Amino acid sequence: MKNFIDLRSDTVTLQPDFMKEAMFKAEVGDDVYGDDTTINELEKLAAEIVGKEAALFVPSGTFGNQLALFTHCKRGSEVILADSNHIVVHEVGASAIIAGVQLRTIETLNGVITKGDIEKRIRFEEEDIHFPSTSLICIENAHSSGNVLSLENMKEVYETAKKYNLPVHLDGARIFNAATYLNVDVKEIAKYCNSVMFCLSKGLCAPVGSILAGDAEFIKRARKKRKVLGGGLRQAGYLAAAGIVALKDMTKRLKDDHDNAKFLAEELDKIPDLTVDLNNVKINMVFFKFNKEINTKALTEYFKKNGIKINDAENGKLRFVTHYWITKENIYKIIKTMKDFLAKSI
Amino acid sequence: MKNFIDLRSDTVTLQPDFMKEAMFKAEVGDDVYGDDTTINELEKLAAEIVGKEAALFVPSGTFGNQLALFTHCKRGSEVILADSNHIVVHEVGASAIIAGVQLRTIETLNGVITKGDIEKRIRFEEEDIHFPSTSLICIENAHSSGNVLSLENMKEVYETAKKYNLPVHLDGARIFNAATYLNVDVKEIAKYCNSVMFCLSKGLCAPVGSILAGDAEFIKRARKKRKVLGGGLRQAGYLAAAGIVALKDMTKRLKDDHDNAKFLAEELDKIPDLTVDLNNVKINMVFFKFNKEINTKALTEYFKKNGIKINDAENGKLRFVTHYWITKENIYKIIKTMKDFLAKSI
Amino acid sequence: MKNFIDLRSDTVTLQPDFMKEAMFKAEVGDDVYGDDTTINELEKLAAEIVGKEAALFVPSGTFGNQLALFTHCKRGSEVILADSNHIVVHEVGASAIIAGVQLRTIETLNGVITKGDIEKRIRFEEEDIHFPSTSLICIENAHSSGNVLSLENMKEVYETAKKYNLPVHLDGARIFNAATYLNVDVKEIAKYCNSVMFCLSKGLCAPVGSILAGDAEFIKRARKKRKVLGGGLRQAGYLAAAGIVALKDMTKRLKDDHDNAKFLAEELDKIPDLTVDLNNVKINMVFFKFNKEINTKALTEYFKKNGIKINDAENGKLRFVTHYWITKENIYKIIKTMKDFLAKSI
Amino acid sequence: MKNFIDLRSDTVTLQPDFMKEAMFKAEVGDDVYGDDTTINELEKLAAEIVGKEAALFVPSGTFGNQLALFTHCKRGSEVILADSNHIVVHEVGASAIIAGVQLRTIETLNGVITKGDIEKRIRFEEEDIHFPSTSLICIENAHSSGNVLSLENMKEVYETAKKYNLPVHLDGARIFNAATYLNVDVKEIAKYCNSVMFCLSKGLCAPVGSILAGDAEFIKRARKKRKVLGGGLRQAGYLAAAGIVALKDMTKRLKDDHDNAKFLAEELDKIPDLTVDLNNVKINMVFFKFNKEINTKALTEYFKKNGIKINDAENGKLRFVTHYWITKENIYKIIKTMKDFLAKSI
Repeated sequence: MKNFIDLRSDTVTLQPDFMKEAMFKAEVGDDVYGDDTTINELEKLAAEIVGKEAALFVPSGTFGNQLALFTHCKRGSEVILADSNHIVVHEVGASAIIAGVQLRTIETLNGVITKGDIEKRIRFEEEDIHFPSTSLICIENAHSSGNVLSLENMKEVYETAKKYNLPVHLDGARIFNAATYLNVDVKEIAKYCNSVMFCLSKGLCAPVGSILAGDAEFIKRARKKRKVLGGGLRQAGYLAAAGIVALKDMTKRLKDDHDNAKFLAEELDKIPDLTVDLNNVKINMVFFKFNKEINTKALTEYFKKNGIKINDAENGKLRFVTHYWITKENIYKIIKTMKDFLAKSI
Repeated sequence: MKNFIDLRSDTVTLQPDFMKEAMFKAEVGDDVYGDDTTINELEKLAAEIVGKEAALFVPSGTFGNQLALFTHCKRGSEVILADSNHIVVHEVGASAIIAGVQLRTIETLNGVITKGDIEKRIRFEEEDIHFPSTSLICIENAHSSGNVLSLENMKEVYETAKKYNLPVHLDGARIFNAATYLNVDVKEIAKYCNSVMFCLSKGLCAPVGSILAGDAEFIKRARKKRKVLGGGLRQAGYLAAAGIVALKDMTKRLKDDHDNAKFLAEELDKIPDLTVDLNNVKINMVFFKFNKEINTKALTEYFKKNGIKINDAENGKLRFVTHYWITKENIYKIIKTMKDFLAKSI
Repeated sequence: MKNFIDLRSDTVTLQPDFMKEAMFKAEVGDDVYGDDTTINELEKLAAEIVGKEAALFVPSGTFGNQLALFTHCKRGSEVILADSNHIVVHEVGASAIIAGVQLRTIETLNGVITKGDIEKRIRFEEEDIHFPSTSLICIENAHSSGNVLSLENMKEVYETAKKYNLPVHLDGARIFNAATYLNVDVKEIAKYCNSVMFCLSKGLCAPVGSILAGDAEFIKRARKKRKVLGGGLRQAGYLAAAGIVALKDMTKRLKDDHDNAKFLAEELDKIPDLTVDLNNVKINMVFFKFNKEINTKALTEYFKKNGIKINDAENGKLRFVTHYWITKENIYKIIKTMKDFLAKSI
Repeated sequence: MKNFIDLRSDTVTLQPDFMKEAMFKAEVGDDVYGDDTTINELEKLAAEIVGKEAALFVPSGTFGNQLALFTHCKRGSEVILADSNHIVVHEVGASAIIAGVQLRTIETLNGVITKGDIEKRIRFEEEDIHFPSTSLICIENAHSSGNVLSLENMKEVYETAKKYNLPVHLDGARIFNAATYLNVDVKEIAKYCNSVMFCLSKGLCAPVGSILAGDAEFIKRARKKRKVLGGGLRQAGYLAAAGIVALKDMTKRLKDDHDNAKFLAEELDKIPDLTVDLNNVKINMVFFKFNKEINTKALTEYFKKNGIKINDAENGKLRFVTHYWITKENIYKIIKTMKDFLAKSI
């Protein structure tokens, strides 16, 4: 990080010194025995911040999402969600293994699903011998496409679910980015779900760990199931201490990352060979396409040689992600590197 | 059946006397020991008819489809298919339990999926640590919407799959209806898949049982897995004898059912309060909507009182199914009953 | 069967003519719609005979046992049972796939488990974060070792389970053999369990099918789960008709099979090279060992050449099974063949 | 720990300052991208120490064991192991959920299984349509009963497995305690298995994490499956740095814990009301029973009031565990507290 400008993801964020100091002063204990006071403090804080009764520390975002499915859903039941969600696309098919559920997906690129989408798919086993039951609705905000669901849309989903007595799980890996974009307290988002997973790593810079929050009874069951999945850690307080800093301090600075993303997007868009969909730069992610054929592998290597790490294109698009370690100065260098590459590749 | 005109489904078909006689005369044995000569004969015949190396008798169509998934797919892998397919909609979420696979569905009402649909979803675990692998493509022909996939479409799907070294499973519960509509030998359809399930019951009038066919190695593994699922039967030869009649004789008369469905459709369509999509009456199913609000529950009861069994509407549509026990004379009565009901319900 | 004396198992039993006649007069219907009156009659009769509220027809004994586990047990919970039970040894590991349960086995050759065995293993997830919950106790009577559990032992198991609020499932594949040996009504056995599976095939000579019986709520849930596993059949009434004959008539003649087994055992035991544990010949099974080294593969072939089918030794023992098609005359031939073989193999 | 003498387990060990310093200075990166150099160093070191090709960091011992089963075993296959192993008793039934395997257990209190035990249970699906295949043999050394398996026994198990082409997984959560007791290099133990899991926490004092080691191909597959289970961490290097200290330094001091356990055992055994099986004090665990009825709940509370944390009895036995934070001086206090309690409880 010190040597590279790393635009691959916000998961690459290293820990600032003040976070590391908090980690090393942490009081710890055996969390399987409930003895880790820092974990206990983090879980209490995390629950408060999202306005839920209880919270649980888990090793990763995927772990937290899958644990939510495993806790909410009867095996063989159905989960309704957008087919572009992380749970569908980037969790290695885990929901068929751990929770043993069937994903009933809705085709959408930006993660927005409507009352109509959901009602068309909701069903109950009592209705027809051929039917499983719907057990959960999932939404993702901010969505990994860079989109932010509106509070209106979240409310629509939540009320539809409630009408059918179904819970809503929110994959809020980047919920603080969503809150920053919407300029609301994160509780305003989380109130439209029964359970929420959010990451302490990523933009918040903690090294390891995510939170699953919900009502007390749900979290009690999730704690047991976390043990089934091998997620019961011992002296996890070091990680929790980082998480506390993440929640208290790092959540406040995400606007900088968004502003940088906006600036990066605008500068990239000025380059004739590129198209950035500026309206969709809502959080810390800039997606863009080239207007001509580009060897993106060569691009990746060229950037690397110039001290910038980027991922190769996925579905024809490149994604640059800003975070704590990307400064405005870095952006000038990124733009210059892009222009140089394009000039050479004519 | 003798007392009712039963339009609910072709699964209700009773066994004609000549089929029952064949059952009665069947030589049987313990099929778990491989001793049931009639089962052996049926499996050989069934394989030949669809042009596959081997075949296996299974207790139901759902059993056969789920056994195919269980045999083809590694747990946690993905199956690409239309979201209106029987496997998605009418098999109680079994694929998340038995095979433990994730369904990657394509939104389509009539079951037609294209090369583009598939390629957008195919992925391999080696590509990205977040990805499961696609393990299977499924199609359904005839489709339960009443549609028949064209050979061109099937070829497109099959060749796309082959390009990625993926197998295709065909849910051919009503493959003989498809062949009848397309006016081709059933082999011409089955050649575009690696495995096929088809039912001996339904339009073919056998009481119980379906066939899973494929290459010899696949069927050998499926036979073992059939035992895991409790599908190893003992003296199943009685059912097999009915199956042999079904395949030899009953496959040839499906055109009658299609003609009756066409006639029924045309007559229904003449009634002003009804709309039948005549272009979609391809097999033995007639779907229609009312043009005004109708109490379909009252309709169902009225029909029943008049000796006709029908199912209530699903998604606003009614479905009438013709089969061996529905004659042309029955259709006049059906039409009359419908007119009478509508006259009364003004 | 007409050509061979088949001692391999009682699963090989063909159907007597009066049973076949009942099959072919059966009134049938689509059982998925609940329309098969003969299935309905069988299920009612079966429930009455074992003294349970309700019963369900299933395709096989393995299907019925696994369905019981799937219906009783939460995934990841534990089932306590003898490690020689059919569920452990002969159901292809299905309980780890379908119900997803952990088998907590007790080492015993004859299937007898005690209060102490069970209490040592019972545990509840609330007690310790590392514990799953026990969800079921299974027993098997008659046991596949040929043993019959006493009513006292069954009572002990049942009351132990009740003390901990746990259900008991009885694998009663050969429950009528057990009742015959114990000389009690089958209800006297079945009253010591919450659910019972028993086979209509085997000694009772029906071609296909078993029954799962229990309280009404349990059977309702099992019916749904039978559909998940692909066990929903259509015109199953033919099989049910055979099942009705099996229950009404064939249950009464099992004493003949037991007497024949006893006679066979005594005659075998007279042969110097053989040892039969006569005290353990309780039902229709005779287990024996040779006192000298014997090529059992050659034995099997020799018997086959002489018109007698037997299975090869398992764990050093041979098993001969008597049934409807084994007469006293056959036994003289069996003994003679054995003596001839041994004389030749000196 | 500073305030309490904690005998409940060695999982409660806090981190010594020099370990915390190493954590603080660690170079970290995003391990999902393979960028965490400290994780990379730990995995290399860990593999070398146990003499395997490759190693993988996992969040917990349960995670590592279950990942081993998930990677070695086909779903529905069987794992042969002692019924007192951690995998059976203390992993919440996870093997029925994650790997979906059937545990074929051997009754033994101290975890010793023999060639005969194994061969009686090994089976292959090709042999019999009713059989699943054995896929793995598991052993645990040191065993959680406090026992240490001899190298001869491990060799016997390993060679039996090899004879049938089966892999052996070693639950070596406390493998360094076993090596210390046997006075051999840990490689001498690990050479009798194909994969081994061992903990960096427990006696080695790292805060979080275990290692799964095996051949390169196995670890590659395990790495993918770790992601499925949500065990892909980001900047895990802090934990890895502790792990490196654990492996390099803390492994050398386990003899102190064993000596302390021996001393504690001898002193306890001198108390008339107590019996310690001194021959079984091999590692850092002392198991003992009271010779008269004792209210162990009161005992636990009395100890706590006196600054000593202990667990309540399990199966009538108490367990005291020594570790880095238990000094010889502490032992005098423990003995005195025990005597005082017993004096008061007359």
